[in-house]
Amino acid sequence: MTEIGRRQASLADRSSYRFWTDERARYSDTDRQGHVNNAVFATFCESGRVAFLYGNGGLAPPGYGFVIARLELDFRAELGWGDRVEIGTTLLGLGRSSFTLGQGLFRGDRCAATAESVMVLMDETTRRASHLPETLRRRLAELADEAMD
Amino acid sequence: MTEIGRRQASLADRSSYRFWTDERARYSDTDRQGHVNNAVFATFCESGRVAFLYGNGGLAPPGYGFVIARLELDFRAELGWGDRVEIGTTLLGLGRSSFTLGQGLFRGDRCAATAESVMVLMDETTRRASHLPETLRRRLAELADEAMD
Amino acid sequence: MTEIGRRQASLADRSSYRFWTDERARYSDTDRQGHVNNAVFATFCESGRVAFLYGNGGLAPPGYGFVIARLELDFRAELGWGDRVEIGTTLLGLGRSSFTLGQGLFRGDRCAATAESVMVLMDETTRRASHLPETLRRRLAELADEAMD
Amino acid sequence: MTEIGRRQASLADRSSYRFWTDERARYSDTDRQGHVNNAVFATFCESGRVAFLYGNGGLAPPGYGFVIARLELDFRAELGWGDRVEIGTTLLGLGRSSFTLGQGLFRGDRCAATAESVMVLMDETTRRASHLPETLRRRLAELADEAMD
Repeated sequence: MTEIGRRQASLADRSSYRFWTDERARYSDTDRQGHVNNAVFATFCESGRVAFLYGNGGLAPPGYGFVIARLELDFRAELGWGDRVEIGTTLLGLGRSSFTLGQGLFRGDRCAATAESVMVLMDETTRRASHLPETLRRRLAELADEAMD
Repeated sequence: MTEIGRRQASLADRSSYRFWTDERARYSDTDRQGHVNNAVFATFCESGRVAFLYGNGGLAPPGYGFVIARLELDFRAELGWGDRVEIGTTLLGLGRSSFTLGQGLFRGDRCAATAESVMVLMDETTRRASHLPETLRRRLAELADEAMD
Repeated sequence: MTEIGRRQASLADRSSYRFWTDERARYSDTDRQGHVNNAVFATFCESGRVAFLYGNGGLAPPGYGFVIARLELDFRAELGWGDRVEIGTTLLGLGRSSFTLGQGLFRGDRCAATAESVMVLMDETTRRASHLPETLRRRLAELADEAMD
Repeated sequence: MTEIGRRQASLADRSSYRFWTDERARYSDTDRQGHVNNAVFATFCESGRVAFLYGNGGLAPPGYGFVIARLELDFRAELGWGDRVEIGTTLLGLGRSSFTLGQGLFRGDRCAATAESVMVLMDETTRRASHLPETLRRRLAELADEAMD
């Protein structure tokens, strides 16, 4: 199995996650193919991401917000109207100016998608990416440690 | 014909409008019934409304924005993926603290929906509705006059 | 109080509803004004409507679906990211070829919006409105009776 | 420069594309950060994709549709309300049971995002992925040749 394959398999495993949020697929989330539109999977990832980033006591320093720099989304199964979707989120990696979140979207035990998101910190005044301050890096590292325990 | 019937008939007539914007129905705007989801009609009305309100030199005073207090939407025909939708917007009425916009959504000559929206001015600091200042009322009255010429 | 005023007051009262669904406002439901976009209120109404119409054992005969002919939406309060929204739905009126649903959107005890929707039955082959068959009218009348008990 | 870096640089270059579609960012596409929500970038990619796949005479055999198996999205610049977005789409690779599209989202000369999408063919009856029939592979190969001319 390749490294990418191993990572995706791990992200598709419910036991990889401690932090969970959930969504329910709306009628308007479906498209003319009858299933949940693919862009809504990105929305579900965002729901987990913002809960993780703003819910853990609020990780962004005042005047800063998180923006996404890269999204990789692997679609594994269809979702349908009314499905309850559980979203697991974990920290995969931490760099000097960005960090990577891993996610899985589940309907019951079935993994509908996995995702990796590279996040950066945006200065809301200049609208530009900023280095991660040391306090934020420490809190993210703690979250990563907890997630790996 | 009732007064409401007359008003709807007039809103369904392209010649009622001088101010136009347009949209194209996206694939993701459709739902599992195969056509454009009904809430997207409200989005199309919003597209016309914000172009009318913020495009005419920007009608809102600094620190204020427009919010919608009431929406009446009459659905007349389905829209499908890829349809080009033209949106006519006009001022129907002007009160002391609110005003009413009339709209028609058209695919070619076919009217797909008509709408009336009651708009109020929101103070962005207090998040509360505010009386319409005299300068705004004058500009809206001018727009109404132009629209009736 | 006018009749419309009385109706809106009643729709804004939680005790008017026996049928409930709920939604949570997503990050992507917000717009640049910082609150939940107005068209999402129409989506929340739809969530309640389809649960009421397709959940009660499925009210539509095979080959038919419900489509909305008219929506009246009264906005009473802002909603924000993460708000849990409870949606009450009831039957307000029943005609020969259409029926009217009344709805309230609540955040706790606070009513954020009320809505009335005129619904028609669509023949999925011809894509045209159809008369309500007698069995459907009876089931809707039963639901209305239950709702008024 | 790495291979991934070269590929992204190429996707960010307008001259890589012959097939274009366009969108305009709606008011409702923005979120509380004031800019176009990240999931809408996925919607813009879809707009280009479906135009490419269903517009070129309709590439899917009867009873089949295309579904996305993987999306990689690199965000390079913010988009705002009202921005006109041009979407270039090209074929990057062609396998036995899937193919890869490359895309760029542009506001004028500025590249706002690049994307790669792995697409599979879905049998609409079984809702399962299917091998690409030879006629489809030939037409895709022709499109790829044209795109590389």
